Amino acid sequence: MKTITPTNILRVFRGAERYLSTTSSVFAAKRVLNIENMNPNVKTMEFAVRGPIVIRGGQLAKDLEKGAKKPFTSIVKANIGDAHDMGQKPITFIRQVVACTAYPELMKSSEIPEDVKEHAKLILHDCGGHSVGSYGPSPGIECIRKHCADYISQRDGIPANSDDIYITAGATEGIRNILKLFVNEKARKPVGVMIPIPQYPLYSATLDEFGLGQVRYYLDEDKNWALNTEELERAYHESKNKYDTKVICVINPGNPAGQVLTRQNIEEVIRFAHKHDLFIMADEVYQNNIYAKNSKFFSFRKVMKELGGEYAEQELASFYSVSKGYMGECGLRSGYTEILNMDPEVVAMFNKMISSKLCSSILGQAALDAAVYPPKQGGASYDLWFKEMTKILNSLKERAKLVQEAYGSLEGIECSEIQGALYAYPRLHLPHKAFAAAKSKGVQPDFFYAMEMLEATGICTVPGSGFGQKEGTQHFRTTILPQTDLMKEMLDRFKPFHSEFMKKYK
Amino acid sequence: MKTITPTNILRVFRGAERYLSTTSSVFAAKRVLNIENMNPNVKTMEFAVRGPIVIRGGQLAKDLEKGAKKPFTSIVKANIGDAHDMGQKPITFIRQVVACTAYPELMKSSEIPEDVKEHAKLILHDCGGHSVGSYGPSPGIECIRKHCADYISQRDGIPANSDDIYITAGATEGIRNILKLFVNEKARKPVGVMIPIPQYPLYSATLDEFGLGQVRYYLDEDKNWALNTEELERAYHESKNKYDTKVICVINPGNPAGQVLTRQNIEEVIRFAHKHDLFIMADEVYQNNIYAKNSKFFSFRKVMKELGGEYAEQELASFYSVSKGYMGECGLRSGYTEILNMDPEVVAMFNKMISSKLCSSILGQAALDAAVYPPKQGGASYDLWFKEMTKILNSLKERAKLVQEAYGSLEGIECSEIQGALYAYPRLHLPHKAFAAAKSKGVQPDFFYAMEMLEATGICTVPGSGFGQKEGTQHFRTTILPQTDLMKEMLDRFKPFHSEFMKKYK
Repeated sequence: MKTITPTNILRVFRGAERYLSTTSSVFAAKRVLNIENMNPNVKTMEFAVRGPIVIRGGQLAKDLEKGAKKPFTSIVKANIGDAHDMGQKPITFIRQVVACTAYPELMKSSEIPEDVKEHAKLILHDCGGHSVGSYGPSPGIECIRKHCADYISQRDGIPANSDDIYITAGATEGIRNILKLFVNEKARKPVGVMIPIPQYPLYSATLDEFGLGQVRYYLDEDKNWALNTEELERAYHESKNKYDTKVICVINPGNPAGQVLTRQNIEEVIRFAHKHDLFIMADEVYQNNIYAKNSKFFSFRKVMKELGGEYAEQELASFYSVSKGYMGECGLRSGYTEILNMDPEVVAMFNKMISSKLCSSILGQAALDAAVYPPKQGGASYDLWFKEMTKILNSLKERAKLVQEAYGSLEGIECSEIQGALYAYPRLHLPHKAFAAAKSKGVQPDFFYAMEMLEATGICTVPGSGFGQKEGTQHFRTTILPQTDLMKEMLDRFKPFHSEFMKKYK
Repeated sequence: MKTITPTNILRVFRGAERYLSTTSSVFAAKRVLNIENMNPNVKTMEFAVRGPIVIRGGQLAKDLEKGAKKPFTSIVKANIGDAHDMGQKPITFIRQVVACTAYPELMKSSEIPEDVKEHAKLILHDCGGHSVGSYGPSPGIECIRKHCADYISQRDGIPANSDDIYITAGATEGIRNILKLFVNEKARKPVGVMIPIPQYPLYSATLDEFGLGQVRYYLDEDKNWALNTEELERAYHESKNKYDTKVICVINPGNPAGQVLTRQNIEEVIRFAHKHDLFIMADEVYQNNIYAKNSKFFSFRKVMKELGGEYAEQELASFYSVSKGYMGECGLRSGYTEILNMDPEVVAMFNKMISSKLCSSILGQAALDAAVYPPKQGGASYDLWFKEMTKILNSLKERAKLVQEAYGSLEGIECSEIQGALYAYPRLHLPHKAFAAAKSKGVQPDFFYAMEMLEATGICTVPGSGFGQKEGTQHFRTTILPQTDLMKEMLDRFKPFHSEFMKKYK
């Protein structure tokens, strides 16, 4: 009765359960905690990246393992930015540093390069009892915070301060920590948070969970998903009666759309935030993932400081993660938040709040250290590190082009330039009968398309409805992470599916 | 202006700031986010384990490093259950498993025992792309959940189901996840959660942060901190007008008081919870830390199932952590929650909620696996593992006795038997002038005592006021974690301080 089956889980997603037979949920005894009295915000929230299509993908993978016959032999998990899962090899330097801090006996081995050992020693020196098994300070290990600050200083050419750095279990925890500060059930009006549409659903899910308001501004697909000030003004003003808007979130490079904001665009956002007294949350986890020839990454911090004056004094939180970039170390759960210009009284409360969660994984922090403080030229690890890093970044660039060209060449699909990040977010022009078919199943048209794609090809993507999109438009997000061979195979599976789908529902 | 100094942080603790000169916090510009409009729950919450005494301890340690002259040459961090920081050595097997999963090249080495390699292979087999860098499933890696269930089955002699296991970043995250489900700002009355007094302040801090009500039941110090039903009834009934009480938390073995509940006591709690329809949260992270000859650990799960009938059907969440036991791997951040009898619709929502946080550290999960699925007899690692484990547990037992006897022999201190866990919670009978001195500084008497102790001896403890205590009583919590030599030194520093304090304020 109480078994948690995928079917059970599926039932929570609106509409989606019609794809699977539902189990009856007749209960003898009423539970203390039940669907009526539980946290209503948890009920409301949705997180499409791990939604019903992914769950169905997991089922199919298990069926295949058991020898079920399908039109495909494997599931391609193009739904989530998980590089290693799609065959990317870890960076040797990062893993050696982590292994040495975990098991310091390794430092006696001649197989481990000297610069790795020095690196590991530096970290262990700042660990209680020289062990990664000790709790660290809640904001992170001191030397690692310093290396994060050094990395930022070098990136921007403007000195950073390690006191502003907070190491977290991935950017996810950092984003949740900052949003948590704005929760105020006692406020006259709910606090509003501006988020881009399309957006990474962590934002919408966390806002729902925390009872904060979503103030949605639309990115301009016709201008390669650029951000425009009139649209920001529209969103801000239209929500004024409903919300007391205090925050603007920007994802740059963009997830899911892969755009890279121009410096001009960033300046506009900063001026807009200044005008309306908004706290800026800059999700910059893809800062190392830039592919387009004419694109360059500018941090909000750099642009703000260079604008100077009051602009330089604005409240900003910026997020970084070892899960993205060339590292792809999602499973190690580490990242940092840099907090600038926050009221010191709030900072004190923030420190108190994070202290009750003790600290983030020290081994994750070691990986973060290896990412922001990589081998120096001339060091024993440098050549291999450089080779591995450039190989990954070049291959991502190649795959970004491959995906864009492949989708761009198909009838009924438009694909913007993938300037950065790890995703394509192609637009679908679906035939009329597909809308009707989706409606009859009670799902969104692009959900219908993505589920049909999965069932026909084994390719797992996320429908645009999970990220948000202009009404009447249809999209899906796919990562560019399958390794080149698998990517080619994926596209070979995709093309016939797409043309058959278009034909079938014409 | 915006530097985060310890002084700044200290200001957030009521009364405590008088110990240090405060910085003026005059601000030119009003911030978007400020102390008036920020999350009021974050303002309210306190977390004494990392409170002002610990922060002052950190300052003193830095002063010592810089060559400052003090009546002591080191800080003894007896404030937090952090074994490795106090000199405990990691278990070789755990660290080898973690290192091999992080850097699989190691598995080619003849220095790594075969059973470690098999273990690491098993884990990597269940990782996406066979890499710990991939996101895991949100509830945890499949084989590790299975090993947790096997551990529980063996512990209780009653089969467990891996579907009920959720791996988390330490027990802290698990406890927060469960409490989160009960938050309901829209409910007629706030939801109340019964917590023991004294308690581990994660509970009070999280309840405050989440806006849940603290329903405090007092443990009976005269009966070695036993739990009694009349007191549970009193607490429940007295809070009835204020709260809709839905949860009872029990910490067994106890933190901070070190008691181990009898089976009889556990049965009483289960019957009480059944009578009043309460969800049981059993914090059992110290289940491997039992020292008293007449004490034995019984899990709530086992007692509930053995009581049978409707008792066996009660909703229960139990917590386990690699931070405690003989492992002491706090920094690796891993633990599990076993959830029993939860409404499947709520389970589905729970799965959705945790999915937005993606997964807990995979390397932490590997450590958890090595803890719940240790080497088998006959395996290459078994002898060393067994030797290391028993050495640690025997030494903890010895230190529990040492601490209890030392405190018990002093005038003005009473110390209950340390039956389990990692702490002593001695009661102070302070002289009258000490109360006056504390009052003049605006702090609690035991805060005053603990701060004086720190300044005189370098021993960092947590005053009873941080855990809660019967009005008019005074305590402090110290861990039994300093290694035996350091522990003896600590007691040698403590005794003269205490007798001088008693003399001075007589």
